Amino acid sequence: MDEFEFIKIVSGYAKDLPNVIQGIGDDAAVIKGRGGRTFIISTDISASNVHFRLEWASPREIGRKVLVSNISDIAAMGATPLYYLISIAVPSSIQRGTILGIVEGMQEEADRYKVGLIGGDTSSSKGGLFISITIIGEAAGGEIVYRGGANCGDAIYVSGALGGSAAGLRCLKKWGRQKGWTRPLIERHLLPTPRVALGRLLAGKRLASAMIDISDGLLKDIEHITICHGLGYKIDGASVPIFKGVERCAAEFKESPLSIALTSGEEYELLFTVRKDDEARLLREIRRGGIRTPITKIGMVKDNPTREIFVNGKIFKVSKYKGYSHRIGKN
Amino acid sequence: MDEFEFIKIVSGYAKDLPNVIQGIGDDAAVIKGRGGRTFIISTDISASNVHFRLEWASPREIGRKVLVSNISDIAAMGATPLYYLISIAVPSSIQRGTILGIVEGMQEEADRYKVGLIGGDTSSSKGGLFISITIIGEAAGGEIVYRGGANCGDAIYVSGALGGSAAGLRCLKKWGRQKGWTRPLIERHLLPTPRVALGRLLAGKRLASAMIDISDGLLKDIEHITICHGLGYKIDGASVPIFKGVERCAAEFKESPLSIALTSGEEYELLFTVRKDDEARLLREIRRGGIRTPITKIGMVKDNPTREIFVNGKIFKVSKYKGYSHRIGKN
Repeated sequence: MDEFEFIKIVSGYAKDLPNVIQGIGDDAAVIKGRGGRTFIISTDISASNVHFRLEWASPREIGRKVLVSNISDIAAMGATPLYYLISIAVPSSIQRGTILGIVEGMQEEADRYKVGLIGGDTSSSKGGLFISITIIGEAAGGEIVYRGGANCGDAIYVSGALGGSAAGLRCLKKWGRQKGWTRPLIERHLLPTPRVALGRLLAGKRLASAMIDISDGLLKDIEHITICHGLGYKIDGASVPIFKGVERCAAEFKESPLSIALTSGEEYELLFTVRKDDEARLLREIRRGGIRTPITKIGMVKDNPTREIFVNGKIFKVSKYKGYSHRIGKN
Repeated sequence: MDEFEFIKIVSGYAKDLPNVIQGIGDDAAVIKGRGGRTFIISTDISASNVHFRLEWASPREIGRKVLVSNISDIAAMGATPLYYLISIAVPSSIQRGTILGIVEGMQEEADRYKVGLIGGDTSSSKGGLFISITIIGEAAGGEIVYRGGANCGDAIYVSGALGGSAAGLRCLKKWGRQKGWTRPLIERHLLPTPRVALGRLLAGKRLASAMIDISDGLLKDIEHITICHGLGYKIDGASVPIFKGVERCAAEFKESPLSIALTSGEEYELLFTVRKDDEARLLREIRRGGIRTPITKIGMVKDNPTREIFVNGKIFKVSKYKGYSHRIGKN
């Protein structure tokens, strides 16, 4: 089965629970504490040769990316990451320096975002290296942005520029880390930036009506804030910000840069919706908050569950659209 | 390196953190919420052919044990488990029914202990099957028992009876699930019972000065509540409660039943210390609280970091003492 079917089955076990504001179904779970403290919790598992390859990245880079992808889940709720736990299963083929490098890389990002290590578990492994992180964040004042808050007519925004992660991965696969011009793309793939400050501002100032981070690809993730809630979207393809170097990569691979940008996973950019009336305030608050991450309006939320992408007035067909979906077991 | 060396290195990253009462180094981390709410968080990773074997146990049994081992970490702090998250990495060789059976088994125990599923992550795997659980509990009124609270002269108690898990594993390895007399031992190995109610009573009534659950074997786990804090122990071997059937298994394998009991891991019994003055109250409260799990006094905390085990006045040498320790990588 694919991961979404599995998640659907498992979600059937989730019940209404006391003090649980949000269970399965968002970037993170939300638990209400007493006295206005709200904890956000998320877990992610990374597997060797699925999420990372020891041939392609240094241990430190692997560790950094693993932690960043978790921090991004907290950022996507508009919350502040506070603590993390590491579970790691290590095969006997892995060198001591490798495993310590991975942990150092994690802690490097943890220090950058002031996330404290509070626990974990270790195991030997009879196959593959697995790292599972649990991250705990807090939303001061309970200001959290969920996936389900968009309304018809809201503007759709994205942070940063897209496509670099997928382009970097294509280059890594074809040429390894050799070719000069591919370097910024590969770095983008290996070391994305979680948008913590932007997420916090959007939540704290109640600017975003819905939000998600782009981990599976924009066209896959946008489903969770539109189609899954009976809404649709219209995207102006010409406005989608494309990461520098993606055009060259697209030319090499005979693909469309826009297709790469729309389907690129592990971007960890924020995709969010803003009520029309809040758009002017959004730009003002971003400036005032000193947020340097660019944001770009790329479309609009529609009333019906339709998927529309236009470029210069013409319908745009995404080539090779897949978005990433894990296979869970055999059938 | 072995897991303890790895944990020691990683612990170097842990700093004093705001609102963290206990970080790395106990069965679970403890985070202070506002208004007296205290969250307990623990994570555990289970790997196929390390923690479980699909040939030996049904998927449901595997799932049940995975969750129970996590619930036990919360019980060992004297807290109440509330929520859990599942991270799972599944190779393509695993049948759909297997993976769903595992999840059903987890949820069966979750229902029994009223633990709610609030999130998770799934991945494909290019190696084995890996399940990482994060469990979150709460200590009402902040009553938590840590590993570090024992004092010289405290009595050492253990819940239940020991050795069944290791004996069951020996039988499984030698005969599979065939032989009749091995059945209770194998069931004990595959389906231990977390001592949640007992743990809560011991914490809530401030009866235990230190506590840990037996996951690596009594002789390994007792180190964490004695030797690690500059204390020692004296155990009366004759008083150690031995699980029914362990004697027969020991005879078959030409081992000492007491050695098996003292080194058996994955028991998930509670090992705790009680101040001398509290012993009478302990028995009274256990009766009053309707706790049916038996507890047995097995020894005493000593002032110096010495390890003493006596049987009928003679020093007892544990045969084949190992206790379980994971190898983490190559060297």
